[in-house]
Amino acid sequence: MFTVLAGGIGAAKFFDGLAGVVPPEEITVIANTGDDACFHGLHVSPDVDTVIYTLAGLVDRERGWGVAGDTFHCLEALRRLGEEAWFQLGDCDLALHLRRTNRLREGATLSEITQEVCAALHIACRIIPMTNSPAQTRVRTPEGVLPFQEYFVKLGQRPEVLEVDLSAASAASAAPGVLEAIENAEAVILAPSNPFISIGPILAVGSGIGIRGSEIGSGIRQALRYTHATVAAISPIVGGKALKGPADRMLQSLGFESSAACVAELYRDFLDIFVLDVQDASLKQEIERKGMRVLVTETVMSSTDARRELARVLMAAIRRKN
Amino acid sequence: MFTVLAGGIGAAKFFDGLAGVVPPEEITVIANTGDDACFHGLHVSPDVDTVIYTLAGLVDRERGWGVAGDTFHCLEALRRLGEEAWFQLGDCDLALHLRRTNRLREGATLSEITQEVCAALHIACRIIPMTNSPAQTRVRTPEGVLPFQEYFVKLGQRPEVLEVDLSAASAASAAPGVLEAIENAEAVILAPSNPFISIGPILAVGSGIGIRGSEIGSGIRQALRYTHATVAAISPIVGGKALKGPADRMLQSLGFESSAACVAELYRDFLDIFVLDVQDASLKQEIERKGMRVLVTETVMSSTDARRELARVLMAAIRRKN
Repeated sequence: MFTVLAGGIGAAKFFDGLAGVVPPEEITVIANTGDDACFHGLHVSPDVDTVIYTLAGLVDRERGWGVAGDTFHCLEALRRLGEEAWFQLGDCDLALHLRRTNRLREGATLSEITQEVCAALHIACRIIPMTNSPAQTRVRTPEGVLPFQEYFVKLGQRPEVLEVDLSAASAASAAPGVLEAIENAEAVILAPSNPFISIGPILAVGSGIGIRGSEIGSGIRQALRYTHATVAAISPIVGGKALKGPADRMLQSLGFESSAACVAELYRDFLDIFVLDVQDASLKQEIERKGMRVLVTETVMSSTDARRELARVLMAAIRRKN
Repeated sequence: MFTVLAGGIGAAKFFDGLAGVVPPEEITVIANTGDDACFHGLHVSPDVDTVIYTLAGLVDRERGWGVAGDTFHCLEALRRLGEEAWFQLGDCDLALHLRRTNRLREGATLSEITQEVCAALHIACRIIPMTNSPAQTRVRTPEGVLPFQEYFVKLGQRPEVLEVDLSAASAASAAPGVLEAIENAEAVILAPSNPFISIGPILAVGSGIGIRGSEIGSGIRQALRYTHATVAAISPIVGGKALKGPADRMLQSLGFESSAACVAELYRDFLDIFVLDVQDASLKQEIERKGMRVLVTETVMSSTDARRELARVLMAAIRRKN
């Protein structure tokens, strides 16, 4: 069994490769819900949705999110009614938000709903939201503390991020099955997602909850430290740049260098294997000194072949370790 | 000022004519909410929406309901997620339901929301839902007591209607402005809508509420009896047949004849003018004996010209009376 911690678009590309190498029934995805938000009264889980659409084969491969060929007629009509409508919600996409919101009101949990949706869309992988509790990430910027999507979508990631507030995730318990999926996996893989706003919220889950005599603890990061699984991470920074999104600028504004080595450092306490792009081969020794193995390979997943090759090479490295 | 009691599609055609004859600022529409229902967690007000779309010039003139050129991508996606999706909700249409549902959750009333929507869509007429309280019509059929839309849309009006249960409307208070719009109008016009399921719920509003010493009472039907306005109704039955919908079959299954005269009888306690189609001219005297004036004219509104002509002739008759 393989467990993947996943943010949005970078993670989705990685699944695309992994699904060609590992039977989907053997994959559990733990998805970030720190960027969940409410739009027009609907509960939207952008990262969970991206994972769902990718694994269902519905994703718009060009954009990396949403449903391929989707239209935006409802959103246009909402604007005509005077609603602020800066978050892109496609018409097909809305069905998932309607379904989720409706089932939440009926008392179902996010993880139950995700399971129902996966069954309806014939997704063989297991997808679990990191938590069933509210866990919204907030970011402190020179323009004030912002809910995540205001920073990310409304303001287009332009404000400098001075602090990422994961206190909601810290106070939340992991969803049922999450800790077990980490404890019982052969390997846990951190997808090449932003370490602060995609992987960070997942790692923070449960960290603020008292341990009360348990050695394992109740947080996801603690589970990663204690698991016997091989824990591997793929660098989201290549040649000092994020392949997508603001990870590079965030590393700098949060006091780090924009380098793959700094990402490795952020995961140092639990990581066994760090996957470095060939462009960054010169960082291999520096990262090895942190006490982890380094796998140098092509990590830029520009084609299906490249995605599969990355997954194949990583699987081989994990199995060498075990 | 003119006040129109309106169901769905027949009423909408009539507005289309009226708006060419009377300045829209002088028109108040009181719309049926007895067929409101909840679909996918959204509060849908089909008759209010049809009135809104018609007066905003957005309506699909072919179908008579919904937004012209609308798509149904969200509904298809809901089906893919395993939802029962027999009520046609277009993608543009959804925006109105999202807006309404969201504002209701924020504590706004149906009439406040309708006013906001009218402002956003530049509708100059005033549209008031008959009540801000739940007032769902139910119908008793050989298959059991059904919520209105299950009978009307899901079962396609096939079951025989043995009773129309308006008890929810009876227990509901008229929305703010409704009784005043009847009391202070020059004329009140009942659109050519189904007398049991479109006009019936409007007339029932407040009828079950105690009067407590007020001579006027708190119901819409009582307001129609006491108003100094001329009250006119256009027959929805022409030549014994409903122009659209199940009104003719309902008249029969509820123990009446399917005839315009029976509709006049249903309104006898408050009606001044009954508008009869030329095809039914032979019923004129029978209806006049009920104590009302009868206007015989073309009532089948098959073209914009025909709609305007009906409105023009009716206005002239109302003004003759006054």
